[in-house]
Amino acid sequence: MKNQQVIIYQIICLLLILSVTILLIRQQKQTVEQPMTTTSVKDAALSVIYNRKSVRNFIPNKPISKEDINTIIKAGMSAPSGKDTRPWEIIVIDDQEILQSLATKLPHAKMLAQSPLAMVVCGDTTKSSYWYVDCSAVTENILLAVEAMELGAVWTAAYPYQDRMDAVIQSVNLPENILPLCVIPMGYPKGEHQPKDKYDETKIHYNKW
Amino acid sequence: MKNQQVIIYQIICLLLILSVTILLIRQQKQTVEQPMTTTSVKDAALSVIYNRKSVRNFIPNKPISKEDINTIIKAGMSAPSGKDTRPWEIIVIDDQEILQSLATKLPHAKMLAQSPLAMVVCGDTTKSSYWYVDCSAVTENILLAVEAMELGAVWTAAYPYQDRMDAVIQSVNLPENILPLCVIPMGYPKGEHQPKDKYDETKIHYNKW
Repeated sequence: MKNQQVIIYQIICLLLILSVTILLIRQQKQTVEQPMTTTSVKDAALSVIYNRKSVRNFIPNKPISKEDINTIIKAGMSAPSGKDTRPWEIIVIDDQEILQSLATKLPHAKMLAQSPLAMVVCGDTTKSSYWYVDCSAVTENILLAVEAMELGAVWTAAYPYQDRMDAVIQSVNLPENILPLCVIPMGYPKGEHQPKDKYDETKIHYNKW
Repeated sequence: MKNQQVIIYQIICLLLILSVTILLIRQQKQTVEQPMTTTSVKDAALSVIYNRKSVRNFIPNKPISKEDINTIIKAGMSAPSGKDTRPWEIIVIDDQEILQSLATKLPHAKMLAQSPLAMVVCGDTTKSSYWYVDCSAVTENILLAVEAMELGAVWTAAYPYQDRMDAVIQSVNLPENILPLCVIPMGYPKGEHQPKDKYDETKIHYNKW
């Protein structure tokens, strides 16, 4: 009788030890599966907005995947536009000859010569008279998506400089009604890049200037 | 001897049951502490960009906290600007009289009359000749921060419409060198608002138009 009891207790003990082991393994796994990068949607999105910075140096010969390019463009096209006219058009340049040619023609975009890719955000002037406003929102979305994806990019202006716009128009063969707002060289960042803290309380005004 | 063994096994069983209980409670707590909103920084930021939508209806008399206002403005001021001139200035309007007055003067911003708050994104024309481009990036950052914080907002244009700009200039007493880009009514969303899917492959061009 006593002996039987001991065996039963031994079995219960074994089962319980098994349970504790399973629970400990599950807990360990859960910790591994939820790394430091998990956070609330709010904090994550704000951190990307705060941390976006201009990146001008890229790892050579490391292209951005087609899937990532489409994700970035989808982010750009999620921008709002006046009367929902969506006047944007996106030129994706990965042809090294065109990138080199643009690098020589654009004074502030020399890094194009070392970039695996560039996007040109353009506006259709027949769809909106202030396409450059809508396309600026597109560009900011693109830069934020790039930051979120741990890639790097920099906004180099074409509009409103006529000579720069002409250089881009010629290089990518834009039709008459399409004007370029900016050229965005992008790639995998090379070296360290720090965001600037630009918060300035003196620029906030309550109700009246 | 046998009796003693049974007691020892009973104690071991009790300790193991206690361990299992503690582990189950910890696991339960962990699940509760990490709700559905946890995700990777990349996915979170992209979801906010994709889900941003125009919100024109707000819960009445539910103000946005001062802390949240500053978070939104900090996001706005994280935008890039040409030659880092940072030409932006932000007017925060929570004075109901000014909001009412603007609602009557601005044809596409009637919702200001029912908004607890509005932000006016302005540019200093002495700091940049294309302040409206930089300030559009500021505005997009503000709209994304609002979306991330589960608040709602809508971009209503002032620039380039002279009559609308004049109405804003007069209402908030802007100095001569400061021009308003837009008025952004904001608050806690009332009702359902769905983002639009604006991704359009026909607007993507590779290398040449």
